[in-house]
Amino acid sequence: MQKIKSPPKRLSELARRLDGEWSRLSLPRAGEVVIVAVSGGADSTALLLTLDELCRARRLDLNLLVAHLDHGLRKASKEDADWVTKLSHKLGLQAYVRRTDVGQKAKRKLENLEQAARSTRYEFFAELAASSGANLVLAAHTMDDQAETVLMRLLRGSGAEGLSGMEPIRPLTSDSEIRLVRPFLGWARRSDTDQYCRSRRIRSRVDEMNEDSRFLRVRVRKQLLPLMETFNNKAVETLCRTAALLRDDAAALSTYAGQLLQKASETEPISQNIALNTSILAHSHPAVRRRVLRQWIASRMGHLRRVEMVHLLAVEQLLEGNRGRAIELPNGVLVTRRRGRLYLSVKKVEKQSRNL
Amino acid sequence: MQKIKSPPKRLSELARRLDGEWSRLSLPRAGEVVIVAVSGGADSTALLLTLDELCRARRLDLNLLVAHLDHGLRKASKEDADWVTKLSHKLGLQAYVRRTDVGQKAKRKLENLEQAARSTRYEFFAELAASSGANLVLAAHTMDDQAETVLMRLLRGSGAEGLSGMEPIRPLTSDSEIRLVRPFLGWARRSDTDQYCRSRRIRSRVDEMNEDSRFLRVRVRKQLLPLMETFNNKAVETLCRTAALLRDDAAALSTYAGQLLQKASETEPISQNIALNTSILAHSHPAVRRRVLRQWIASRMGHLRRVEMVHLLAVEQLLEGNRGRAIELPNGVLVTRRRGRLYLSVKKVEKQSRNL
Repeated sequence: MQKIKSPPKRLSELARRLDGEWSRLSLPRAGEVVIVAVSGGADSTALLLTLDELCRARRLDLNLLVAHLDHGLRKASKEDADWVTKLSHKLGLQAYVRRTDVGQKAKRKLENLEQAARSTRYEFFAELAASSGANLVLAAHTMDDQAETVLMRLLRGSGAEGLSGMEPIRPLTSDSEIRLVRPFLGWARRSDTDQYCRSRRIRSRVDEMNEDSRFLRVRVRKQLLPLMETFNNKAVETLCRTAALLRDDAAALSTYAGQLLQKASETEPISQNIALNTSILAHSHPAVRRRVLRQWIASRMGHLRRVEMVHLLAVEQLLEGNRGRAIELPNGVLVTRRRGRLYLSVKKVEKQSRNL
Repeated sequence: MQKIKSPPKRLSELARRLDGEWSRLSLPRAGEVVIVAVSGGADSTALLLTLDELCRARRLDLNLLVAHLDHGLRKASKEDADWVTKLSHKLGLQAYVRRTDVGQKAKRKLENLEQAARSTRYEFFAELAASSGANLVLAAHTMDDQAETVLMRLLRGSGAEGLSGMEPIRPLTSDSEIRLVRPFLGWARRSDTDQYCRSRRIRSRVDEMNEDSRFLRVRVRKQLLPLMETFNNKAVETLCRTAALLRDDAAALSTYAGQLLQKASETEPISQNIALNTSILAHSHPAVRRRVLRQWIASRMGHLRRVEMVHLLAVEQLLEGNRGRAIELPNGVLVTRRRGRLYLSVKKVEKQSRNL
């Protein structure tokens, strides 16, 4: 590994902006163990080095741990892991590397590889956080990643929640107290991290999968976004602003739906399950009603896997009395309308067949 | 003009689906004067001919009037007007043609030409509706037009309202009782209208402006949508579904904002102007608060021209006390924070300078 140019005496532009975002996000400045997810690409390398700048300048006093998951998908992946380890040691930081075989784990079609890689990474981070006492995991996603995510969701079909893109701060997993933080997401461009790495004379690693046009994300990055930038050279910023607006919309609608869910909830005497009052639902806005139905199903099932808009629309038909008295949803869920109430039950057959 | 193939004895597929949509939209079936906007392109020609089918089959009993605005933008536009007139006469319908010079009217940059053309058309339709007693104006926009509109708004920067695209039914102008109806918008593709015209052996007119790549809409149609269809061959349908979901979201949020506006409104004793209670606003969801501010400004000014997200964010800063006590908005509007209230005033100077 080449010699890294030592940080400038004054903070770099990128480090100063990161410092500002740190305040805006009300993140802790001292006394914390913080995991930094570093793939070795320009974004995460720049994140690690700017955090190091802020620590050296005493703007932060954090115990940084570097985490690198070797997905085992490429020949060069071992070299990436070594590179990240060496970089960490040069900075006087500990690096934790885990090697897995994501391809084996996915063993399904290409698009699911991304999903499998993500869940494996998150498991690794969660375990590392638990053993090290970290409350924060930092990821280096930029505005460019956000714009790509928004476009992928748009292409696949999505409402406000999906088009909101990634959140700057969220729980690492749905019930986790560990927070996943993306301090570059709101303001940094990929060109900023590239330029930063060049200015520190560091050659970050290039992930060949980032060039593999079988991945939707790569085609969005290489084809769709560049075309959109010929229409509006601020396309990335514009998409990110739309995502932020829709995130606020989705949050407000979720609150209203939660209130309506409470109002419409009626507890069944024996099972203690929650039934919904149909006339309260029937008089509510479709946008809120569909979210009530989602929250209701999620609270009972623990998830919303495979539940799609078409299912919610079917339940709405049920509400209006246009479509019999029962609707079957995925995962063996049955929604029944009876005497002014909607009931949710889970078919036993399905449960058994899953155990086979 | 060539001979039109007479309608099939049984209703065409397109006419049958139009009939279904007519019911879904609860449109009147008899005793009404209805204006059909016909440019002479495949979409509006197909709309006129399928309406004619439904009238001949006694599914509808409406007095159809054909309206054609000759925008005076192209050499061939007079020929289009003649073509539409002849087609109408063949169907036994009256055609109303008006010639204007939209180019003269716009005399600004290219993009505004579309805007000028639209407002001129709407004025023409409104006058014709008033003189003929029509309550409905039908326009032939398809799902393809909707998808293009959504993408144009996305490229320019937009929230849920903009990304909702066009509405299937709306007032012709903001305070009009005449309804603009787009009965193709929810389900018909441009390929459907093309195919229909071919099946009736009618060569609809081609608008050269539809080929002029200086227009954003044309580039979206010719470049962006085809690329998106290589990612998802149902891209048009997917975009239309997203638009419909966001339209529901925007409608719900607008209702909540209206309720909050009422709750936060405090009438000033002398002027009878409405001030807003800042602590009620401060505790509301940003997504709803921004819509309250928009509704408040619109109710006072009669419009929201030039008011953008950046202005609403500035007023939010004012609410939080982070940015002095006054914010200047476009159109000479001043928002002031004073003793727990937001006041809106219109600068006299601006009014005078406008009169010069």
